[in-house]
Amino acid sequence: MKRVKLTVAYDGTNYCGWQVQPNGLAVQEVLNRCLSELLKTKIEVIGASRTDAGVHALGNVAVFDTEARMPAEKFSYALNTRLPQDIRIQNSCQVPDDFHPRFQETVKTYEYKIYNRKFPDPTKRLYTYFYYYPLDVEKMRQGAAYLIGEHDFKSFSTYKPEVENTVRTIYELGIQRSEDDVITIRIRGNGFLYNMVRIIAGTLIRVGGGYYPPKHVKEILEAKNRELAGETARPEGLTLVEIRYPEWEAKKDGHHVSVDPLP
Amino acid sequence: MKRVKLTVAYDGTNYCGWQVQPNGLAVQEVLNRCLSELLKTKIEVIGASRTDAGVHALGNVAVFDTEARMPAEKFSYALNTRLPQDIRIQNSCQVPDDFHPRFQETVKTYEYKIYNRKFPDPTKRLYTYFYYYPLDVEKMRQGAAYLIGEHDFKSFSTYKPEVENTVRTIYELGIQRSEDDVITIRIRGNGFLYNMVRIIAGTLIRVGGGYYPPKHVKEILEAKNRELAGETARPEGLTLVEIRYPEWEAKKDGHHVSVDPLP
Repeated sequence: MKRVKLTVAYDGTNYCGWQVQPNGLAVQEVLNRCLSELLKTKIEVIGASRTDAGVHALGNVAVFDTEARMPAEKFSYALNTRLPQDIRIQNSCQVPDDFHPRFQETVKTYEYKIYNRKFPDPTKRLYTYFYYYPLDVEKMRQGAAYLIGEHDFKSFSTYKPEVENTVRTIYELGIQRSEDDVITIRIRGNGFLYNMVRIIAGTLIRVGGGYYPPKHVKEILEAKNRELAGETARPEGLTLVEIRYPEWEAKKDGHHVSVDPLP
Repeated sequence: MKRVKLTVAYDGTNYCGWQVQPNGLAVQEVLNRCLSELLKTKIEVIGASRTDAGVHALGNVAVFDTEARMPAEKFSYALNTRLPQDIRIQNSCQVPDDFHPRFQETVKTYEYKIYNRKFPDPTKRLYTYFYYYPLDVEKMRQGAAYLIGEHDFKSFSTYKPEVENTVRTIYELGIQRSEDDVITIRIRGNGFLYNMVRIIAGTLIRVGGGYYPPKHVKEILEAKNRELAGETARPEGLTLVEIRYPEWEAKKDGHHVSVDPLP
């Protein structure tokens, strides 16, 4: 038996999200079906991040166990010949039998993209949130600065009764405007509450639009009240870029790994 | 009566191209229908460029005549409330009654995008051509240099019996690789033959992949033989970025306009 780790990229447009739902096709479902067909036995993957309907991923992670003799590295190629074009395995490798994609230290990176111009570009509509009114990126950065570090992010999450601890750490929160008017909010942390990135994006859009001053972000954070933060920004702007596992990487490489800023 | 010029952006994925065809829905058809509904009389636009199925546009141009009192500038807003999300009017303005989008001097800019990495990114699949083998951008630039200027581009076009003159001028042909492995071929000229940009892209991909040396592009050009050039690269990588009308712009602005490099 070996445990195989998949790095999974997908266009979330046509899916009801990662996790199996009664109301649509889930990415996980398609992956389970293709793997089961490939290995001629029922396979169910364990996913790292249950992305919502319409949210994209470049690097979600899933693991499964198999007795198959196929080398772990070959699964990416074998699966990509069976998967639809909007799901692509980026990498497959063997991991220890006790590697769990959720129950260990992780560092996740998300990007939220806003297309901020007078008229929408139809070729960007599936991967950015179109926002008409001009946004002040410098003010957004000032607001974002209050969120970096360890905080109780209760104000920036949709309530889930099973989540008791709402303290998380944000390591990086950068905001850039590209030449073609895409504002990218890039956020990296040790974990994210339900809808947290989208609520942070919705709040920073309010700051960038001048609806409230940057320092109001600090007051929202301290109030621990979801009602004070901005709306949950639309799903199509969100991409799960990367999930890293510092402990596993350290063991694998035989030395301590610091999670460097991405290129 | 006034003539209105529309700058039309669209995602070509779900269309059979610009021009009305028996086998699918055309962008022009949707535009005619929405305009006719808006103005409650039959309208047929005249388009500048008949983009093929799957090809995108940020700045195709169409004109129509109307007796309506609505100011020309308002048509962009009025149409965007009726058009599907994958077609967006970027601008509308009045032009002289004899302004024809094809029968006058034009400067067109296209971009052809290649996603050049080991595994495809599903969120780029509709707007780039995925190419697995590493491409040498410097070699592509060397090959491209032979195409700049006035030449007979017969080797780089799909034959159309009605086109007698295959001489065109390319003003600019730049190639850039972005941080996320998208190679953009940006090409600007006074007109393009049928499939010309896609055949140039297919040929430069062969040069970049090392299938033949850059200087072979010169030999292909001189042979005036379509069979020697590379394949017609897939439509999803192509975007019509801009169409400019130097004569009209000069008259409109009251002085001579040089068509500057785009930002």
